[in-house]
Amino acid sequence: MDAKEDTNVHSGKEITCTAAVAWGPGQPFSIEQIRVQPPQKCEVRIKILFSSICHTDLSAWKGENESQRVYPRIFGHEASGIVESIGEGVEEIKEGDHVLTIFNGECGECTYCKSNTTNLCAKFRVDPFQSVMRNDGKTRFLTEDGKPIYHFLNTSTFSEYTVMDSSCVVKINPIAPLNKMTLLSCCLPTGFGSVTNIANIHEGSTVAVFGLGAVGLAVILGAKTRGASKIIGIDINSDKCIKGQTLGMTNFINPRDLITSVHEKIREMTEGGVDFSFECCGNLDVLREAFLSTHDGWGMTLILGIHPSPRMLTLHPMELFEGRTITGSVFGGFKGKTQLPMFVEHFMHEIEGPKLDEFITHELPFNKIDQAFDLLIHGKSLRCMLQL
Amino acid sequence: MDAKEDTNVHSGKEITCTAAVAWGPGQPFSIEQIRVQPPQKCEVRIKILFSSICHTDLSAWKGENESQRVYPRIFGHEASGIVESIGEGVEEIKEGDHVLTIFNGECGECTYCKSNTTNLCAKFRVDPFQSVMRNDGKTRFLTEDGKPIYHFLNTSTFSEYTVMDSSCVVKINPIAPLNKMTLLSCCLPTGFGSVTNIANIHEGSTVAVFGLGAVGLAVILGAKTRGASKIIGIDINSDKCIKGQTLGMTNFINPRDLITSVHEKIREMTEGGVDFSFECCGNLDVLREAFLSTHDGWGMTLILGIHPSPRMLTLHPMELFEGRTITGSVFGGFKGKTQLPMFVEHFMHEIEGPKLDEFITHELPFNKIDQAFDLLIHGKSLRCMLQL
Repeated sequence: MDAKEDTNVHSGKEITCTAAVAWGPGQPFSIEQIRVQPPQKCEVRIKILFSSICHTDLSAWKGENESQRVYPRIFGHEASGIVESIGEGVEEIKEGDHVLTIFNGECGECTYCKSNTTNLCAKFRVDPFQSVMRNDGKTRFLTEDGKPIYHFLNTSTFSEYTVMDSSCVVKINPIAPLNKMTLLSCCLPTGFGSVTNIANIHEGSTVAVFGLGAVGLAVILGAKTRGASKIIGIDINSDKCIKGQTLGMTNFINPRDLITSVHEKIREMTEGGVDFSFECCGNLDVLREAFLSTHDGWGMTLILGIHPSPRMLTLHPMELFEGRTITGSVFGGFKGKTQLPMFVEHFMHEIEGPKLDEFITHELPFNKIDQAFDLLIHGKSLRCMLQL
Repeated sequence: MDAKEDTNVHSGKEITCTAAVAWGPGQPFSIEQIRVQPPQKCEVRIKILFSSICHTDLSAWKGENESQRVYPRIFGHEASGIVESIGEGVEEIKEGDHVLTIFNGECGECTYCKSNTTNLCAKFRVDPFQSVMRNDGKTRFLTEDGKPIYHFLNTSTFSEYTVMDSSCVVKINPIAPLNKMTLLSCCLPTGFGSVTNIANIHEGSTVAVFGLGAVGLAVILGAKTRGASKIIGIDINSDKCIKGQTLGMTNFINPRDLITSVHEKIREMTEGGVDFSFECCGNLDVLREAFLSTHDGWGMTLILGIHPSPRMLTLHPMELFEGRTITGSVFGGFKGKTQLPMFVEHFMHEIEGPKLDEFITHELPFNKIDQAFDLLIHGKSLRCMLQL
């Protein structure tokens, strides 16, 4: 973009708006008026239009990892909106752009961003401990009486307006439907990209997906798209089965229905184990089952779930020596700023687009956020889309 | 080879010869006369000319893993020789062929052998528990008074004659010098292939090699060949430093000289960690250091060492989630029967060939095998070549 077009730098006024503020672990959200500061250098202020809720929000809201507890705080990271104003130095984004928020940013300048082997940015990678802006170590949210309200995952989208570093803001095609595209801010790329970017599975592969939340279902969708021959979904909630089948799952296991362990069952179903297993729960015991479910010689386990517990995974070196690999996958390996716009185009076309509807099971106005959390807690929703 | 050439099927006579028999854990070898049965279907009887000693022999001889203790037994797996006779159905090998023994066989028929993602054969993969021939569950070695002597790692090369399944016998170019080529039966492909086949490292990569025995040195050689920019060797025996440097090591760490942990030192030396770490010790604490020495975002740890202890490796899922991968490497990923002959050619040319000399630090007659074990135990030898 030419510099001359860059005429929308905001004059720098504070905005007062509504946000859902968390004042303590697991406490009902306080829907209150907050003050949102103007964006500073390389920052963007966004009018959030849609924000959905992911288990990472749930876990953080509950304060499961005590060392990450910081209050008052604004959670929310899977969202979309329209740029309200930009700070000094922002060149690739302007007022009025349609954008997705990403929790795993891309500065484009660091060793990591310049490497084609990772999508973890040195500065803006996913970091649940980060609760202030990197420019000045301060927050851009204040209570009405001027006390700081902390940020979350580079995003904080449970607010009508948020301020983010431009490295975490992705401009997308303005004709893409923002409500559905909100899913491409987190769960869709996380699951789908793990299949296509990290595992890079091929036609005929066998796959096990542990946990059929939105991320797990996105794994199924990716595996189906790549032509996997067997896609086994595992969840302790059998209600997830139908949705899984709709998206391409070929077999379902509810561990509670088994006498044997899940990995024994899977090895039996697949002549020795699956080619790829995806752990989408953040549960250590499940992760070990996922690891043991893979075929020796070539099996690969991908960790997609956030593990808030300090408990350690135990593996015997010989289990790896037998030709198994284990690795992690953050945001499906996508470099957000660079690659997400093309991923959006993928889901704008007529074949893939309608599949996004399967993920949005509920829509609620923003002030019903407690109800939306309840739906997720009780396994009733995949994604409840909050409309701000 | 045409069937008509297959005229060397042995008539099936027993051979009496000298072997080094282990009668109990850690006991001096008994150099005694044994009876070697003729090869059965798909088996090959080999006159062993050279056999070297690897830490896997040492660990098994000591009986470190109690559940693998079987006596009397003939150890030894890194060896070369000449085919004395073949059993029924052996087509690709004939009497007089120069061969290497491989502990990780390739039947060519199973799902694994037909997959290009693994070199573990369903039937003849490395298996320290296997102590009899697969044809009939019996041994081909007998004491003079007719009691069975057990096999080891598909090979049992501490004997003037051994019987092996043809899936574990690799025919090589007869003009290749057998004494040096013996290294290509185990340590060279294990280390070198981990670099070129499994890690597939590229020019400019940074590498840490934990344990500078023959396998670790072969990793260094492979890394040097691939143009690694930094090759850090780690060993508690500083005498290993010179050999490492000769083969391409750029930095050496003796953990006993450090105040900090090895991984902290390596991260400091490499701006955050190496691209690849290779664990060549079979030590769990070293493996964890190797894992933590890799760079987040893209670091890969390869397990080359056999871990006889039932102790488990502990990792935090988030350590993997940060973009690290851990995997195993058996025999450097080489499919022995198919790929080893070309690897032999590689080490026959004038540039690579002389490097093999660096690995052979001692040569002894076969009956000095106890002395050869002593040299390895005390870190005095890399490879002591026993001449049979």
